[in-house]
Amino acid sequence: MSMLVDLNSDVGESFGTWTLGDDGHVLDYVSSANIACGFHAGDPQVMLQTVRLAHDRDVAVGAHPGYPDLAGFGRRAMTCTPDEVYAFCLYQIGALVALCHAEGVSLCHVKAHGALYNQSARNTNIARALAQATRDAAPGLILLGLPGSRHEAAARELGVPFAAEVFADRAYRADGSLVARSRAGSVLHDPEVIAARVIRMVTERTVGTAQGEVVSVHADSVCVHGDNPAALAIVKTVRLALDGAGVHVGPLREVLSL
Amino acid sequence: MSMLVDLNSDVGESFGTWTLGDDGHVLDYVSSANIACGFHAGDPQVMLQTVRLAHDRDVAVGAHPGYPDLAGFGRRAMTCTPDEVYAFCLYQIGALVALCHAEGVSLCHVKAHGALYNQSARNTNIARALAQATRDAAPGLILLGLPGSRHEAAARELGVPFAAEVFADRAYRADGSLVARSRAGSVLHDPEVIAARVIRMVTERTVGTAQGEVVSVHADSVCVHGDNPAALAIVKTVRLALDGAGVHVGPLREVLSL
Amino acid sequence: MSMLVDLNSDVGESFGTWTLGDDGHVLDYVSSANIACGFHAGDPQVMLQTVRLAHDRDVAVGAHPGYPDLAGFGRRAMTCTPDEVYAFCLYQIGALVALCHAEGVSLCHVKAHGALYNQSARNTNIARALAQATRDAAPGLILLGLPGSRHEAAARELGVPFAAEVFADRAYRADGSLVARSRAGSVLHDPEVIAARVIRMVTERTVGTAQGEVVSVHADSVCVHGDNPAALAIVKTVRLALDGAGVHVGPLREVLSL
Amino acid sequence: MSMLVDLNSDVGESFGTWTLGDDGHVLDYVSSANIACGFHAGDPQVMLQTVRLAHDRDVAVGAHPGYPDLAGFGRRAMTCTPDEVYAFCLYQIGALVALCHAEGVSLCHVKAHGALYNQSARNTNIARALAQATRDAAPGLILLGLPGSRHEAAARELGVPFAAEVFADRAYRADGSLVARSRAGSVLHDPEVIAARVIRMVTERTVGTAQGEVVSVHADSVCVHGDNPAALAIVKTVRLALDGAGVHVGPLREVLSL
Repeated sequence: MSMLVDLNSDVGESFGTWTLGDDGHVLDYVSSANIACGFHAGDPQVMLQTVRLAHDRDVAVGAHPGYPDLAGFGRRAMTCTPDEVYAFCLYQIGALVALCHAEGVSLCHVKAHGALYNQSARNTNIARALAQATRDAAPGLILLGLPGSRHEAAARELGVPFAAEVFADRAYRADGSLVARSRAGSVLHDPEVIAARVIRMVTERTVGTAQGEVVSVHADSVCVHGDNPAALAIVKTVRLALDGAGVHVGPLREVLSL
Repeated sequence: MSMLVDLNSDVGESFGTWTLGDDGHVLDYVSSANIACGFHAGDPQVMLQTVRLAHDRDVAVGAHPGYPDLAGFGRRAMTCTPDEVYAFCLYQIGALVALCHAEGVSLCHVKAHGALYNQSARNTNIARALAQATRDAAPGLILLGLPGSRHEAAARELGVPFAAEVFADRAYRADGSLVARSRAGSVLHDPEVIAARVIRMVTERTVGTAQGEVVSVHADSVCVHGDNPAALAIVKTVRLALDGAGVHVGPLREVLSL
Repeated sequence: MSMLVDLNSDVGESFGTWTLGDDGHVLDYVSSANIACGFHAGDPQVMLQTVRLAHDRDVAVGAHPGYPDLAGFGRRAMTCTPDEVYAFCLYQIGALVALCHAEGVSLCHVKAHGALYNQSARNTNIARALAQATRDAAPGLILLGLPGSRHEAAARELGVPFAAEVFADRAYRADGSLVARSRAGSVLHDPEVIAARVIRMVTERTVGTAQGEVVSVHADSVCVHGDNPAALAIVKTVRLALDGAGVHVGPLREVLSL
Repeated sequence: MSMLVDLNSDVGESFGTWTLGDDGHVLDYVSSANIACGFHAGDPQVMLQTVRLAHDRDVAVGAHPGYPDLAGFGRRAMTCTPDEVYAFCLYQIGALVALCHAEGVSLCHVKAHGALYNQSARNTNIARALAQATRDAAPGLILLGLPGSRHEAAARELGVPFAAEVFADRAYRADGSLVARSRAGSVLHDPEVIAARVIRMVTERTVGTAQGEVVSVHADSVCVHGDNPAALAIVKTVRLALDGAGVHVGPLREVLSL
């Protein structure tokens, strides 16, 4: 069996006069771009420019909807109703679909951002609202998310194609969940260590915990960050390691055989 | 020749806890609904509910994009660049397309709101940005606007179907333009007077000025307002008058034979 | 002992083109106005007009800060940090102080809105942030809030004058807390019943529960709502009942003997 | 006569997760900080942190209100009414006053930002709204602005202390106005050239045009930018040159002998 995995990163997180990340470079290394849709980051011009950057590099485009919270970058939990979540996910995904359509690009996937990602991972009703919006916004969209989460369950229940992601730079616990960011050692920083973990997660389907346990993982996609120079170095190292290990980095549609 | 005209109204202008207009009733009388897209009014839930109201009554749905100015209701002129206008029109139209898609509705047209309507009527570059966004957001969209305006010219130049609207309750000048709102007598209030003018504009293709001149007009659509009880009474009177005069009120697609 | 109580209501909750409530009338009956400060409702012009309305009627002005959530009217819980809450309360209170200063009005109190009210009632750190902002924004401000809450405790801890409010139209439980809005019977609607309860809460310092228990309450202020015609009728009935019972309705500063 | 001039810079222009400028460094060299007030940049936490940075360095704090246009950074002209401008300037100035009060800082001045600066320089009614808000928001505020502008005239008419600023890095025309940014050579880049011009503007009260004319200027304050490394180098060079020339850099209150 030839190895194949998607590499995804959040991009298009600038807003107006403010620049965040180095999208032009990170898009040189990934196969999927999660583009912010204006509610937590990304204004319409930033979105359009990011679609163009992704299209130029043949990177698949996904919508990255978030809570309506620009000042909090969509990271603050908010008690939105499922109806609210459904409507604002449709809204954000649709906005990006039109910007893609203008550039001859077909939207590929949806990945929730920040607090919406976390709340839809744990709350069944929010998860269903997200999965329904993914199903209803445009035909054939894939939901990219956390394996074993409520949003995976909701996607499978609704017949929405689901792609599971692992995190290149995060420590895992024995039950396969992530070590909380507040804990020491929860985020890894050494590019070589991270790249080796990614190779193992993709080729052996396991990851080691800090306590030395071996955990099974399934990765349709590997999430990497590119919002600062150190992060960009990690992306590059991971990509070169995957290439060197003979793992093909390709888009979700290919990974899921859709 | 059997008479046919579209009747359009701006709807979906509530926001969050704030209600504006009586959309449920105005949609009983019109054939096209211009739905606010979140930048000057209309949040995603309001948009979705308004799509449902229109769909229930078989009213054609159009996008009503505006400037990003909630506090000013999109009525304040802003010096946006054509690139900005293009991108945020794509964004707003796309958002509504997805909400329509979720309800099995096909978006029919685009009509700019407030200051964007006025600036795109007079400024060639803004007009082109609007027409390009209408062309690029989704296939087959009609631009509804002011006859003789720059946005009509831009639409024709780009091959975007254009529908011309007249205003039921506004006084006209001898050159076919509207009397400025700041002038006395610029806005008519008597439902019967307004209905009679509309019948004349549609069946005789003329309108009389305050000075008694007769002006030629062409109406693919008649714009009516329904945001207060008096306005709603006008909408109802105009519709009954058109029905009584044997004028068929039908959607833009039919009027333009598309 | 001559009876004295404050009567407070949330006002200034319009925004831009959208009107909410009938401030001109509700301010005829209350002694304290809690004015929305732009984050959940109220734009600067609405705030200024509301300050003028209150000043004309000799009604004391308070700031009514809320979460930065216009679409959710500040009713959605948000996980803001205490530092965020402190800074945005200072910001909102200060904005109103300047609008008051321009009108020769001295800001009297602060009452948190919606989810901020509820979260600061239960969470010590949020409560302290609110009380600190009340202390630091301008000299001598009173915090108006829920008796027995964390924000009462925080105010007393910091030496901020605290005024306790009861709710005219809400059912109470035997422990003195409110019956949740989701329960049947949690909100009362009959103006006469409500007025009689208010008289009892103020003159006898007790309220009856649905189960017939008698609960002790302490009311520096009674909160009434005026955002619809039925609510306005309640305000008027309550005020006339207090006047008829010989209870003087006066501002918080007088109630607290400051 | 001993020379004295103020050196001012726009700071606090970050927002939420987005950072702009290097405020910590630029504040080492200037005597007045114009702090963005949340409408075009600057959230309440950024504002508070910037007040602290300025206070630590004994830099005078001013409010830098702008149009409500975060996506456009307050640079887009908007047709706000004078009443709107008056109210939102009061609001923004007041918000900063409270944040200053919490830190034991007294607000010193007001300088309009971007399009509001430009529109209030040319339009008498907007200028008056700005000057009135400066007068009414808090006692004793100075309006810092463009010499010869409508906002200078409005300030003098209303008895608001006015401080005139010159621009360190902009080319001047023979009538004392600035060469438009769209023209080649309108912005200077060489730190030494800029510093020499500033020394001349301050000590000789003249500036040379590109055509070699000598223009009289009056500088209570010199505006410098610090939002990128090159700009910061200019600030430092200008400050060292002023120090070297024996010009005392001090706050507006001292310059105006208030």
